[in-house]
Amino acid sequence: MSISGIIAEYNPFHTGHKYLLEQAEGLKIVVMSGNFMQRGEPAIVDKWTRAQMALEHGADLVVEMPFLVSVQSADHFAKGAISILHRLGVEKLVFGTEEMLDYQKIADIYVDKSEEMENFVKNLPDNFSYPQKTQAMWQEFAGLTFTGDTPNHILALAYAKGVAGTGIQLSPVQRQGAGFHSEEVETSYASAIAIRKGADQLDLVRDFLPSASLFEEATKVSWRNYFPLLRYQITTHPDLSQVFQVNEELASRIRSAIGSVATVEELVEAVTTKRYTKARVRRVLTYILINAVETPLPDAVHVLGFSARGQAYLKQVKERVGLVTRIGKEPWDSLTQQADLVYQLGADAMAEQTYGRVPVRVE
Amino acid sequence: MSISGIIAEYNPFHTGHKYLLEQAEGLKIVVMSGNFMQRGEPAIVDKWTRAQMALEHGADLVVEMPFLVSVQSADHFAKGAISILHRLGVEKLVFGTEEMLDYQKIADIYVDKSEEMENFVKNLPDNFSYPQKTQAMWQEFAGLTFTGDTPNHILALAYAKGVAGTGIQLSPVQRQGAGFHSEEVETSYASAIAIRKGADQLDLVRDFLPSASLFEEATKVSWRNYFPLLRYQITTHPDLSQVFQVNEELASRIRSAIGSVATVEELVEAVTTKRYTKARVRRVLTYILINAVETPLPDAVHVLGFSARGQAYLKQVKERVGLVTRIGKEPWDSLTQQADLVYQLGADAMAEQTYGRVPVRVE
Repeated sequence: MSISGIIAEYNPFHTGHKYLLEQAEGLKIVVMSGNFMQRGEPAIVDKWTRAQMALEHGADLVVEMPFLVSVQSADHFAKGAISILHRLGVEKLVFGTEEMLDYQKIADIYVDKSEEMENFVKNLPDNFSYPQKTQAMWQEFAGLTFTGDTPNHILALAYAKGVAGTGIQLSPVQRQGAGFHSEEVETSYASAIAIRKGADQLDLVRDFLPSASLFEEATKVSWRNYFPLLRYQITTHPDLSQVFQVNEELASRIRSAIGSVATVEELVEAVTTKRYTKARVRRVLTYILINAVETPLPDAVHVLGFSARGQAYLKQVKERVGLVTRIGKEPWDSLTQQADLVYQLGADAMAEQTYGRVPVRVE
Repeated sequence: MSISGIIAEYNPFHTGHKYLLEQAEGLKIVVMSGNFMQRGEPAIVDKWTRAQMALEHGADLVVEMPFLVSVQSADHFAKGAISILHRLGVEKLVFGTEEMLDYQKIADIYVDKSEEMENFVKNLPDNFSYPQKTQAMWQEFAGLTFTGDTPNHILALAYAKGVAGTGIQLSPVQRQGAGFHSEEVETSYASAIAIRKGADQLDLVRDFLPSASLFEEATKVSWRNYFPLLRYQITTHPDLSQVFQVNEELASRIRSAIGSVATVEELVEAVTTKRYTKARVRRVLTYILINAVETPLPDAVHVLGFSARGQAYLKQVKERVGLVTRIGKEPWDSLTQQADLVYQLGADAMAEQTYGRVPVRVE
């Protein structure tokens, strides 16, 4: 049996995600973000609920990305997620994209010329944002052009870099329906953003979420729930530049802005510059919310749930991969555990995220 | 004209406080706590409102204690407050007490034997709380006995120590009506605690608060408003023992308890031991809420309000005392300003506490 891997956030799990799982072959392993997202925001519903959604619709095994993998720019996100899939024996990475290119060929270019390509990026002017630099690199070395709104394609290129040295094959699937950023709900594959914005519209939820009732019952949060805590952290933190990826300039911009904004989005607007993109600022605010400092990534893999097939597979691999199925006094990853404690503070009804939690089983 | 000084919290200003102001002679200078109290809790209404209450009922000048004076054990509280009154030329300290003793004589004993007395305290067993040690000292050197519920008397003894070397005379006034800790509202001098507990009972407020309408209109807060922030701070702080007066033992007790308590009072109960009194634990939690580290006390005096007489007096003393009447970019006391920012986060309707605020004038 072949072993397919998928990298996902499932924020929340929608028909497009189900479609991708259907396209994958063999045993389907998903490495999923925990309770904070790559764009720098809390997950609308918690990781256990999202893992269950995926297991109910085709996933065999769902494992968790540590906080410092899931809340990262595309390259680190891709690299960290692929590393986990690689440890679990994944042979093929299945992903959705807007552009059906030969990503394997692109990956091979990167394997051949990675040093040259990274040097090219380093020597680009400082006023380029990191995404701009990366696009310039692909244009230079692979002749790719970019037409704006293709975030999955851009992530796919990060996967192409990330698989270097792992032997994992790239298996793109044409993305159906609305793009990732789209706020319009027109097709049967609504984007996750449109679904989050319409989370209280029952029709939308029932049409586009395969696990609609799970979603409806779950406690939902957004940045709005955490703004009072973020504002307080910024107010009382002795030195924000101690926080992961916060430099003096960002610390100063954030401190100046916090007194005159009423929402996280207003704060993001006030802090963003050409050099510091909105996504980066949102991630930095997430690091501040968690008071994150750089910590080594865990070697062990945290299991969020499995099917019978997934469970059987875990028995096969447990000799060569450290698996955590229940977090006790020793954290799996202290930063992820801290992020989960903060996530729980967002709503009174939020379920305990760590202690006593065992993998979701879906037969 | 003689110059009387009063040390106060006015949390809130009640008929007993008005009575004490009436007993004082000459120009009446009050040094008042800011937005956090000696017992380790937020003021029920903000400092500007409380200063106005005092000015409407006899005070000529109200100045602010820095955070690290107001939120302190009795000795440091008394010493810091007296130091400010001394700088302002106060000749006589007027205070309420349950016991009409010759405090001046007690103060003289301390002047004579302070070294011996402090050594006595130092050599008492470690399992005595600090208040117990102080009482043992007074018993040994001044023959005083303590009968339990006389917190004003105990504070008065701290004043007796605090005036050493200043030349300030002690002028006790027999306290009328309910004791400080009393929760019963029986007499015409209700205790501040009973008033805070009955803050929503209009009869009580109107009978015992000389500035009832000011109080009714003000935004009111209590620890309840700050518990979510405190819990979050404890959750994300990398090392609580960096906070002022938090040792490893307290840090560890607080961290273990925070996951299983729903209020500050429950947390205080869980952390308190024979050695760490409730008042001390509450103060420590206040330091954590502010994320306070030890900072030098300011030399300048921050003016919260004055009468015409008070204003005239300020003109006389401004050559020899640094006065701050409007806080701009430079803080008066950075820790007090931080405490005020946090205080403001307790309620949406809370007025700005620092920037643009000028002294209250009552003619």
